[in-house]
Amino acid sequence: MQIDINADLGEGFGPYAIADDASLLQLITSANIACGYHAGDPVIMDQTVKVAVENGVDLGAHVSFPDRMGFGRRVMQMDPVELEKHVLYQLGALDAFARTCGRKIAHVNPHGALGNLASADDVIASALVRAVGSFDKSIRFLVLPGSALEKAAHQAGLSCYRLFLADRAYTADGQLAPRARPGAVIKDAEEVIARLLRLVREKTVETIDGETIAMEVNSVLVHSDTPGAVQLARTIRTKLQENGVSITALSKQA
Amino acid sequence: MQIDINADLGEGFGPYAIADDASLLQLITSANIACGYHAGDPVIMDQTVKVAVENGVDLGAHVSFPDRMGFGRRVMQMDPVELEKHVLYQLGALDAFARTCGRKIAHVNPHGALGNLASADDVIASALVRAVGSFDKSIRFLVLPGSALEKAAHQAGLSCYRLFLADRAYTADGQLAPRARPGAVIKDAEEVIARLLRLVREKTVETIDGETIAMEVNSVLVHSDTPGAVQLARTIRTKLQENGVSITALSKQA
Amino acid sequence: MQIDINADLGEGFGPYAIADDASLLQLITSANIACGYHAGDPVIMDQTVKVAVENGVDLGAHVSFPDRMGFGRRVMQMDPVELEKHVLYQLGALDAFARTCGRKIAHVNPHGALGNLASADDVIASALVRAVGSFDKSIRFLVLPGSALEKAAHQAGLSCYRLFLADRAYTADGQLAPRARPGAVIKDAEEVIARLLRLVREKTVETIDGETIAMEVNSVLVHSDTPGAVQLARTIRTKLQENGVSITALSKQA
Amino acid sequence: MQIDINADLGEGFGPYAIADDASLLQLITSANIACGYHAGDPVIMDQTVKVAVENGVDLGAHVSFPDRMGFGRRVMQMDPVELEKHVLYQLGALDAFARTCGRKIAHVNPHGALGNLASADDVIASALVRAVGSFDKSIRFLVLPGSALEKAAHQAGLSCYRLFLADRAYTADGQLAPRARPGAVIKDAEEVIARLLRLVREKTVETIDGETIAMEVNSVLVHSDTPGAVQLARTIRTKLQENGVSITALSKQA
Repeated sequence: MQIDINADLGEGFGPYAIADDASLLQLITSANIACGYHAGDPVIMDQTVKVAVENGVDLGAHVSFPDRMGFGRRVMQMDPVELEKHVLYQLGALDAFARTCGRKIAHVNPHGALGNLASADDVIASALVRAVGSFDKSIRFLVLPGSALEKAAHQAGLSCYRLFLADRAYTADGQLAPRARPGAVIKDAEEVIARLLRLVREKTVETIDGETIAMEVNSVLVHSDTPGAVQLARTIRTKLQENGVSITALSKQA
Repeated sequence: MQIDINADLGEGFGPYAIADDASLLQLITSANIACGYHAGDPVIMDQTVKVAVENGVDLGAHVSFPDRMGFGRRVMQMDPVELEKHVLYQLGALDAFARTCGRKIAHVNPHGALGNLASADDVIASALVRAVGSFDKSIRFLVLPGSALEKAAHQAGLSCYRLFLADRAYTADGQLAPRARPGAVIKDAEEVIARLLRLVREKTVETIDGETIAMEVNSVLVHSDTPGAVQLARTIRTKLQENGVSITALSKQA
Repeated sequence: MQIDINADLGEGFGPYAIADDASLLQLITSANIACGYHAGDPVIMDQTVKVAVENGVDLGAHVSFPDRMGFGRRVMQMDPVELEKHVLYQLGALDAFARTCGRKIAHVNPHGALGNLASADDVIASALVRAVGSFDKSIRFLVLPGSALEKAAHQAGLSCYRLFLADRAYTADGQLAPRARPGAVIKDAEEVIARLLRLVREKTVETIDGETIAMEVNSVLVHSDTPGAVQLARTIRTKLQENGVSITALSKQA
Repeated sequence: MQIDINADLGEGFGPYAIADDASLLQLITSANIACGYHAGDPVIMDQTVKVAVENGVDLGAHVSFPDRMGFGRRVMQMDPVELEKHVLYQLGALDAFARTCGRKIAHVNPHGALGNLASADDVIASALVRAVGSFDKSIRFLVLPGSALEKAAHQAGLSCYRLFLADRAYTADGQLAPRARPGAVIKDAEEVIARLLRLVREKTVETIDGETIAMEVNSVLVHSDTPGAVQLARTIRTKLQENGVSITALSKQA
């Protein structure tokens, strides 16, 4: 029984910080690192990569639309070929910092509005897949199970890691219940832990309608920018370990 | 007798163009490609790299301060470590596009205000050298002979290519005569050609004061954004070839 | 019989130019001036305003989404209140340059993707109207007849000027025929002139289906960034004047 | 006996915050508001202006070099005429938000690297003075006594408010002691208060060398982005009031 703990990091900019990256990097095993598009800058990227490597944390590229003011949360209508080139730009930029530590980008996870689109829209998903495929075919996508991105990656012969959102309810088809639906967001830490343990032990999730569905994942996401993020990450890590689950980076999973 | 012809390319941005890159890429043998800092964007970088590779043109990173509005021509007071990380970011970004063509960055040439500082200031030169050295020690700097950048590169065990500015007068110590000095800028195309031929054949330059000094270079720069740039590049290429000089990319020089 | 000739100006950025603004400012009577969002910068805005004022050209704010790389042509999903504040920012910035010439912004015309949305989407149109209404109720919108923006402006008690696109075909309801439809874009200069004369004299347009519809406008748009823009503007101006039409700025129309 | 309490506000950006603006706006009487150049964006500017007006706080423009990543702390070598236009752009942008509240910009205070240059460099100071003079001659500069900016403003017939830095030591000529000098930064809150009370009551300051010099100011600056900023502002406000000093906005001072 093993799982990776994943968080979005390096999301400061210039003088600004948004999360306690230093603490989180001691608790997680893979990081999605901002590439200067929705957040991050060269100094922050360098620092985040260095500390991640020191802590044995896998390096992921958290690629985004070019929109710092909107933190990558706004949809930008962009030609898919142009989007592909923007993703390449970000992959290369992050790779430079990985390279100075003798490391490589292990996975890619699209951020915010781009992430939502890539889960639902085949054209956007394919643009991301073309970018990663032309850059380094050994990089894996970190995806929501059943997403357009997962399908596009597999069609192109790229591998994926599967991500679980412990604080979100799922529907019977294994997709996230819309946020607007009552019960879609799970705020109780104990329930989050219980769901996680069940997922790791039994490979099942109880849906928002009370059914049990099968689900197999590699990683659980911890939100980095919410109050109590570090404490929640610590609790998840401890409880999982107490229950015999090994916290294992994606690249080291059996 | 061989020499490389070099130009700054990919300096458009979004809807804007500033030079006839397509024509120049048929005449030159190495390109300094803007990396999205003073100019360029992912679409333009991709296109410039692709056409350069098709034409057998060497790929160089034209790194800059982050200042699109000022086209990288304004000095920005930047911490040397921060500057190093900005250069790494740009190297990585350009490398991504080179990689999709199965190529690598062959050389680095700093642009505008950063270029001027790197020629004169040891601290700035060292920051550039650290960035390139940590990214890929096989990349060479394209430098003005005798510059701070050349010295810093050699001290760090990195190799350089030497650049000649055919339209600029030199002083007895082999440095560029300041622009303000009468005769510092050579506008007559025939004189430019004559100086070039003498340089290639005899490895000498006549200084602004009429002396003859030794000078050995690998490349001659053609300004891409001045009126008549394409015609001048064509004339230089033709005249050199007519006089038995081989126009040879830096990476292929004997 | 009078009409205003209008063009989008000040759309350069830093070292880049995209149109022959100096020539156009001698031919047109109102300018939509970029405000640093899709194009333009403080130096260009200052210069454009100064030369416009010298030529008696009305000053308009060509407001946009914040997207220089995409030249404001990409839809950005933006909260309407946030959009309202972005429009206010641009109005204030342009007003500063108008003020130094003892002038005011006379009209507002949204650019690119924002313009398309404002014509079709009541929520976006209302955000623009709130911004202008809170800034200066005497500023008028320059709109396509029948657009959402015209309706929202009128509902809020703001006045509008109506714009005619001489090179575009219209449908029976007075709207632009979609570009994809054959005949939607009129490329023949003589036909453009003929349509304009008819519009000014008879206040009618022949639709793409051959019907005649009534149309009353204040201004005709000349595209500034297409090849031959200056020549077309000159021809339109001359032909209209030869046929007894007075070329009159919006603010001076009877 | 009266003094204004001043702070730099609105220095967040997009999702980022850097100070507790809401609390500070209940304690200060004038605000230097970021204009989107070193920090701030239209949503933040609008919010800051609204809350400042609700609290009777004077509105000041905190103009800067265009450098968000560097937070305006890096010197940019900029043509003085270009700088003048950048300042105009920022004044106009902030004025738009003031206008929607029926208010005007009361003062201008340059930020960071631009502020340091404007205190020391006549050319930079004059560029700022030209911008403000052409925008609205009734706006005053908030300056360090004896600075280049104060001189340039007075020469151009513009008025100034004088600013005191309560946590900085002064030299015998009334200038700030360089930060590097021991004792230049005063960290003890009680000493800060004592210096302030002496300044307001006696109009004198004890210099870093123990001399007493005359100093007359209108405002004391509270740093907004240091830990404990709100507490220090509250203490200063309370202690001054307990000692009979009226906390009075610049525009309301007798």
